This record gives sequence, structure tokens and C-alpha cells, in this order.
Amino acid sequence: MRTYTEQELQNVLAGVTPPDSAAMARARAHQESLAKPPGSLGRLEDIAVQLAGITGSVHPRADRRRIVILSADNGVLCEGVSSTPKSVTLSQTINFARGLTGVATLARHFDTELCVVDVGIDADFVFPGVLDRKIAHGTCNIAVEPAMTRSQAVTAVMVGVEMAEKAKNEGVEILGVGEMGAGNTTTSAAVLSALTGLSPEVTAGRGAGLLDQAFLRKKEIITDALARMRPDPADPIDVVSKVGGLDIAAMAGVFLGAARCRIPAVVDGYISIVAALLAVRLCPGVRDYLILSHASFEQGYRHAAEELDLRPMLLLDMRLGEGSGCPIAFSVISAACAIQNEMGTFEQAGIDDAYLEEIRKGDKFSV
Amino acid sequence: MRTYTEQELQNVLAGVTPPDSAAMARARAHQESLAKPPGSLGRLEDIAVQLAGITGSVHPRADRRRIVILSADNGVLCEGVSSTPKSVTLSQTINFARGLTGVATLARHFDTELCVVDVGIDADFVFPGVLDRKIAHGTCNIAVEPAMTRSQAVTAVMVGVEMAEKAKNEGVEILGVGEMGAGNTTTSAAVLSALTGLSPEVTAGRGAGLLDQAFLRKKEIITDALARMRPDPADPIDVVSKVGGLDIAAMAGVFLGAARCRIPAVVDGYISIVAALLAVRLCPGVRDYLILSHASFEQGYRHAAEELDLRPMLLLDMRLGEGSGCPIAFSVISAACAIQNEMGTFEQAGIDDAYLEEIRKGDKFSV
Repeated sequence: MRTYTEQELQNVLAGVTPPDSAAMARARAHQESLAKPPGSLGRLEDIAVQLAGITGSVHPRADRRRIVILSADNGVLCEGVSSTPKSVTLSQTINFARGLTGVATLARHFDTELCVVDVGIDADFVFPGVLDRKIAHGTCNIAVEPAMTRSQAVTAVMVGVEMAEKAKNEGVEILGVGEMGAGNTTTSAAVLSALTGLSPEVTAGRGAGLLDQAFLRKKEIITDALARMRPDPADPIDVVSKVGGLDIAAMAGVFLGAARCRIPAVVDGYISIVAALLAVRLCPGVRDYLILSHASFEQGYRHAAEELDLRPMLLLDMRLGEGSGCPIAFSVISAACAIQNEMGTFEQAGIDDAYLEEIRKGDKFSV
Repeated sequence: MRTYTEQELQNVLAGVTPPDSAAMARARAHQESLAKPPGSLGRLEDIAVQLAGITGSVHPRADRRRIVILSADNGVLCEGVSSTPKSVTLSQTINFARGLTGVATLARHFDTELCVVDVGIDADFVFPGVLDRKIAHGTCNIAVEPAMTRSQAVTAVMVGVEMAEKAKNEGVEILGVGEMGAGNTTTSAAVLSALTGLSPEVTAGRGAGLLDQAFLRKKEIITDALARMRPDPADPIDVVSKVGGLDIAAMAGVFLGAARCRIPAVVDGYISIVAALLAVRLCPGVRDYLILSHASFEQGYRHAAEELDLRPMLLLDMRLGEGSGCPIAFSVISAACAIQNEMGTFEQAGIDDAYLEEIRKGDKFSV
């Protein structure tokens, strides 16, 4: 696995450009010509305009869909902060490729490709359909030391960027971002607290089902790690390297890369939204490329969404992770494209008096 | 158009039976065998269990989808309570059949049939794809007199029941309910206030875009109509006949008929949820057959949802009506079915030590 430099990352950040405002204005103008009260399709209209800005096309498409899933182990798991055993990171990663997990099932149902990437699973293995970009055999335990080196964090972000570029080159029109990493609600809460100053009391939740004692311990570990390592909120790489995970860093990279390549990217669930916030802190322009799928059950989600000033579109109480909400979000986004590309205009839908007269008489049609 | 009797309606109400609790228990048990933390797919799991209860099958399907759209004019329109001119009821009804409207576009995109029914458009016409069940040429003006006779209200409800039965006979697996009727946010607010005792201040909204003066007038008309006619909240037919509309009554009938025929029914938007509440007041057992699509922008929606103790699953700020959220909701419901029917179990997803050993060595696969 090659190492990336901070300069390479800076080049990506510098390459993120704003949406095409002329295309957005044309998309809005087209919507005003559609046979409906102005604005009555709400966020379906907003999404179509956003996609027009991202793609430069007044008639954007979201047919070629892919979810990039980043897998990595977290050293903090040995502190008992998760109800998920460590072996699950590897076994579920393999099951993504075998098509057996929740996200794999929904992806198949909604014509979505999976791109499964090992950025830090603590096991040496080879499995078809799992891309090897292993940066470390899991992170270090943040209860003791920084999760990773600064160079590892930069490299993880750049692996995410690489995955977005690969998607763009392969014709993907919309990206989603998912993850697998036992213990990653702990690291996500730590990153969110570090970036926002919010207490772990509000950023940490019970993950896949923690009991009271372990939940208290989880919050204590985050509080201690932040106090000890003092990650700098103005330096997102410092934050993710000290208290984050390789999965979170790489997910942030996918969001960054998506913006760089002008592909819309779906933010799905708690870990995903923390990674999105990290990406936006690295480069504020990334925000314009993001679409939130479902409102995660994990309590920190809401705070991250407020921080991004973005709203989810699905209320499904999901907390599986994996990017499992992305395929459903793609379906809603495809509905926005259908309205933009296929709905009748006032001109087409106009029914003049002569036409009405014929219909009234009933002699236009014999039924 | 034939007239239905109250006895015929009573027979339908008596025919609504509870969901199959044994099938629901089997569906839950199956979900516990799926390779994910228990409950982590949230409402997708709940929907699958609900569908199992409705259909009696642990592996329910929602592939054959239909939206029943009820069109009718409202006499109250002449009071200036809507920004939509009266001619739009007829022209959009025709445009449903021509495939040009928002709901028609989304229905085509999501493999959904439309069943367009004229229950009270104030025009004589014939158009292919519009079913003639006209009960009156629009309702009377509730600012002056009751909207319709009790017999007309019963007949409208029964037309809705008939449409649900027709769908069942034609193999439809899931129904949505939409409407077209200029002025029907006024009648819906009046029905909601009558059923719940809530003030028009909280049940009435700006519809497709009312200005301040007309909005005040709208609320005044509702308040006056309720004070003058005193509809009996314990008698939903009294309520809908005095201050409702033929569209609302027929929509309530579709919900009732869906429950009677054991088809799940999607409640979409403000007028739809008021009709659903009316159906539940006629027969509380209907509630188990309902699924809410999007949270309407219209302020009264939230109150009706609370009254039903049901939650929407889409946050899209839509306020077009027509049943336009149904196709998107069908897509989410199909995701719930995909999880229930196609996701891997713990047994399938189990990876034993020997298998892991082979993967670790890398000699199981040559990549």
C-alpha cells in the first residue's frame, strides 16, 4: 500500500469547485414550466436542482449507482465499547462481497453496485470482490494512544478519493458511502465531539445495542481520549488521526473525491455523517455535493446534521450501518430525476376550451 | 350511478378483520434469523411484519401497485378559499389519464398503475382511463349548506370500497390513495376539526399557495360551517356529508375497502390522511392496514398523524397532492419486502474458523 502526502491531499481540496449555478438556474426555470403549483414537489425539486448544479445538466440522471463500503478495525474495541465482536468486521466484509448483508440485499433490489474496500481490517486475507487497500491491521486503542499516524490518516482519506475517482471513471452517476468496523460508533462520537465541542453525552449512543455499564464506559473513554490528546478542531486530519478510524478517514475521502469529480454523494447513517462533517471541515465546498438519506437512530446523528445544516429524507429508525440506507435514497433521488426529466409542462398539460368542449360532448372518444 | 345503503356500508365495516398475528410472529422470528443486530433495520422490519399480518404470508410482496385517484369538485371553491381555479379539477383528472401529472410521472417511474375515478367533477365528459362514478356535479358550498346528502356520502364511501375490491380482484398487492379536487384542503381541514375538535387555526393551511387574506377567509368559513351545522364527531358520515367532499368520502372508502380485502394501503398527504382518519373512525380496525408515505407540508397533517398514532417515512416537503408520494412509498415498502425475502440469515452468513483460515492463507481464491 503506497503512502500519500499532505500535498497530494491539498491538491484534491484545491480541486473542489462550486456547483454550476447557470445549470441550477436553468433547472429551476424548467421546474417552473412543469404542470404543478410552484415548489409543490418540495425537496424532489431541490434535489433535481442540486444534481443539475453538480452535473451541469438540466436533465441529470442517477441510474448508475454505487456504494463504496470502507472496512477497518478499531483498537478501542478491546475496551468493551461495542456489543459487536471484532470478528464481525472481517466476516461482514466478506458477506458484502457474498451479497448476504442488509446493504447487499437492498443494493441488489435497487440496481446498485457495491465497492467493498479493506482499509484496515486486522486480518490478512484474500477474497474476490474485496479491494485491498489495507493501511494498518486496525487502529491503535484511543484509550491509550492516538488511533493512527498523521500519514496514515492522509493516506486513508486519499484511498477514499481514489475510490470516488474510480467510480467516476467507470461511469457511476451517484455514490453512497457505507462502512463496517466494530467499535466505530465510539470513534465517530469522539470525532464529532472533537470537531464540534459537543459533549460525548450527546454525541455517543448505544450503537448496535450497548447495555448501561458499557455505555457509560464508552462515554468515559471518549472524554478521556479528548482530554488527553487534545485534537485540534481546526485540523481535521489531527482529529481523525488521534481519535478516529481508518474507515471514517476513508469515508471522508470518498465525499471529498465525489465533490472533486462532481458526483453527488449520499450520506447514510451516523458514521457516514461524521465522515461527511470531517470532509466539509477539510473543504467547505463538499457540502454542496451531499444528500442525506435516513435519520439514524443514533443520537449524535441529529447534531452532525445540524452542524452541516442538512436534513435527512427518510425516517426509518435504521441503525444497521453498512450504507444500508443508500439504495433507498437512490430510489428517491431517481424520483427527483424522473420529475425533472419526464413530467409534463403546463404547455403539454394545457387543455383549451375547444378540447374541453369535445370531451364534454363525449364525441371525442367512444369508450 | 347506483345509490348504496347504510346497511351495505355496515356490512363492509363488519367485514374488516384483524391482521394475522401468527403470520406476524413468524415474520418477526424470521427477522431474528437475519444476519444483523436485532431491530437494526427499524421500520423496514415493522413494515414487513405489518405486511405479513395483512397478507398472511411471512414473505409478502408489494410488486403489483396501484394508486386510486378520486376526483371531485367542491362547492366551497366559489368563496375564494383556494388559489387553484375550478377548471383544474377536470383538466388534471384528464392529465392523470394522459400521464402528464406529477403522480403519473412517478407512477410510471415506479411501475405503478393509476385508477382515476370521477366521483363528482362538475362537468359532463368522457375520457379514456377516467372511470365514471359521478355522484354529483360537485358538492354544495359548505359556507351555505351541507356539502351533500347522507346518502351521497355513503355512496361515495362505497365507491371507494368498490375500487379497493376491484384492485384486489385484479391482483393488486398494495394500494395508494390520491385525489384531485380544487378546494379540498378547506374541506379536509373542516373534517379534521370536526372529528378531533381541533381549531381550524391548526388544521387549516395555505394549500397550494393562499395569500393572507384568503387564508383568513378559509379559516373563517370552516369555523362558521362547523358552528352552524354541528357535525357529530361520533358519526363520521354526518361529518363528511356536512363539511367534507365526495373525494374525501371516496378516499375513506378505499382505505376501508383495502382493510376489508386485506391489502395494505398507503396514506399520502393531507387530504389522504384526513380520509384515513375518517375511515378509522368508521372502523378502528382499518388502522392496521395503513402506511404513511411523506409528511405533508400542510400544517394539519401532523395533527391527523398524531390522532392516528402513525408516523410518515418520507420527509420531502411535498404538497402537490394527487397521491404523488405513493410511488416513492411503494419503493420503500418494496425494500422492506426485499430484506424480508432475500437477505441472508446468520446461518448462511456464518463464517467458521476453517473457512476463515482458508481466506487468511489466500489460497481459497486466486485473485
